[in-house]
Amino acid sequence: MRISFNEMKSEFKRILMKKGFDDKMADEAAQLFTETSCDGVYSHGVNRFPRVMEYIDKGYIDVKAVPTKIEGMGPFERWDGNLGLGNLNAKVCMDRAIELAKEHAIGCVAIKNTNHWMRGGTYGWQAADAGCIGICWTNTQPNMPAWGAKDRRIGNNPLILAVPREGGHVVLDLAMAQFSYGKMEACKLKNELLPVAGGYDSQGNITNDPAEIEKTWRVLPIGFWKGSGLSILLDLIATILSGGNSTYKIGQLGQDEYQLSQVCIAIDAKKIAGDDFLSKAVNEVLADIKLSEKVTKDSEVYYPGERTLNTRNENMEKGIPVDDGVWNKIKAM
Amino acid sequence: MRISFNEMKSEFKRILMKKGFDDKMADEAAQLFTETSCDGVYSHGVNRFPRVMEYIDKGYIDVKAVPTKIEGMGPFERWDGNLGLGNLNAKVCMDRAIELAKEHAIGCVAIKNTNHWMRGGTYGWQAADAGCIGICWTNTQPNMPAWGAKDRRIGNNPLILAVPREGGHVVLDLAMAQFSYGKMEACKLKNELLPVAGGYDSQGNITNDPAEIEKTWRVLPIGFWKGSGLSILLDLIATILSGGNSTYKIGQLGQDEYQLSQVCIAIDAKKIAGDDFLSKAVNEVLADIKLSEKVTKDSEVYYPGERTLNTRNENMEKGIPVDDGVWNKIKAM
Repeated sequence: MRISFNEMKSEFKRILMKKGFDDKMADEAAQLFTETSCDGVYSHGVNRFPRVMEYIDKGYIDVKAVPTKIEGMGPFERWDGNLGLGNLNAKVCMDRAIELAKEHAIGCVAIKNTNHWMRGGTYGWQAADAGCIGICWTNTQPNMPAWGAKDRRIGNNPLILAVPREGGHVVLDLAMAQFSYGKMEACKLKNELLPVAGGYDSQGNITNDPAEIEKTWRVLPIGFWKGSGLSILLDLIATILSGGNSTYKIGQLGQDEYQLSQVCIAIDAKKIAGDDFLSKAVNEVLADIKLSEKVTKDSEVYYPGERTLNTRNENMEKGIPVDDGVWNKIKAM
Repeated sequence: MRISFNEMKSEFKRILMKKGFDDKMADEAAQLFTETSCDGVYSHGVNRFPRVMEYIDKGYIDVKAVPTKIEGMGPFERWDGNLGLGNLNAKVCMDRAIELAKEHAIGCVAIKNTNHWMRGGTYGWQAADAGCIGICWTNTQPNMPAWGAKDRRIGNNPLILAVPREGGHVVLDLAMAQFSYGKMEACKLKNELLPVAGGYDSQGNITNDPAEIEKTWRVLPIGFWKGSGLSILLDLIATILSGGNSTYKIGQLGQDEYQLSQVCIAIDAKKIAGDDFLSKAVNEVLADIKLSEKVTKDSEVYYPGERTLNTRNENMEKGIPVDDGVWNKIKAM
């Protein structure tokens, strides 16, 4: 079925208020969950919503908490998430990084004790909407083996880079695992193979069969040793800057994922580059990529964020696709 | 053969002075080329040196140029490389980013009209030596197809992340292509296959045969579509912040690679995190990774930068390995 943006948002808001959020926070969080769904990232929108409510019930997420500033050093600030809802916390941090960028050209906010921010791309779009370059990342629980290892000790630590552009920002939302657990699960349920290798089977061979990968949970980092290294560095930097938990420490908390560390950087692209250069430089790069010789006659070369925008427009018009079972579960909450 | 650090450096310095560099610049550049070789990145050290001298002769690199500041906005500055030697320019930029970080906690320098910085990791080690987190990247000429394309319109745009650590920094030097042209060439000459897939053959199949990849130059970005997106964003951000050339524009200049754009960010990790937290947090993450269950009994899990340090120590002791032909060519310059 397809549900309109407004209907989905008001259902989310109703439930969030029932859980104890005040009107403003419930409204903002509902907006973020709905935008994420509308942009096609169902795994971190409507499909994830029930699990987030469960985390509230378990006490991992504090519905009364708001993030607080611990320390400011000019363009850099440290915040404490106080275990508030992850997407609200991250939005506050990127907002603050944008404010700092408007003042200092660049702003950086690191936050500890926060929770899963759902779709990381959200905060890239947010920075770009404000005319800023956005760079942000989060650490996660240990869910991927380091290169050379079999057991999971590093995170898939998504990294987001965003550039503002009239007519559609350029936004990359990049987890360090080649495929998310959600993507592998979905492929397995449809008896499909992954489009490229995603991990290892029990014999230690690289495979694109999600059912085999599930037996080992030895998932592949992007670029093999390269994504493994990038994951480690992103985790270390988030930990150092926030003074919070590393992926290692998050793993010590148990099976559930909470008390994360994140970094939001904003750079005032409009001020630094000027509107004319900004728009000309970005558009000529994208235009050149679009002129590529395509792999097949009917294929397309997309810039990062292009398909998100297409999905957003389609879902705004036709409604957001939702699995009947998921929606009924949410309606009953 | 193996050449001592001092002998290699003095040969480089002799030639650089012959090309017209003054004593100080020749000494610094010779130091950087030698350190890069000593750290095992021969492709961007001793093996690359003759080509850099050729670029000086062709007029792409100006031996008299030093980078100049165009504009300052607190912790952010724009510089012009004035087509000086790439490694000297990048070192000046990271030095300035570090100075800005000591003042503002974070510093960011973007530079246009610069040249190939040789080994990007150099500037990560440099930031970490100063107690800073280092984040830097460069764009390149178009040398990789975007995802979905056959012809090369994006760059392999190396990204460097570094974290300071007593006893050995954690430094990642990450090109967006799965393998460098140099690595593929070396494998081909030895009739070896690449350890994992590195590109496509003429039939459009993924292959790890460097001889087949050479026929198409359709090299693989790390993580397929993911590295393609990351390359595009890094190029856009370097272009916007520096006001310089994008990979597209660099491609318009012809076959040779010059007039690049780069970004150096330093963050004062020691000041922000404090020595105790910094060292404890980093060491416990690395120790945990080292405890991983290894893929094979004899294999090891390395942290980024660990093998560089091992190579450095070995080459300082035994001398730096150099191909006889390359060394004779340099001696004759």
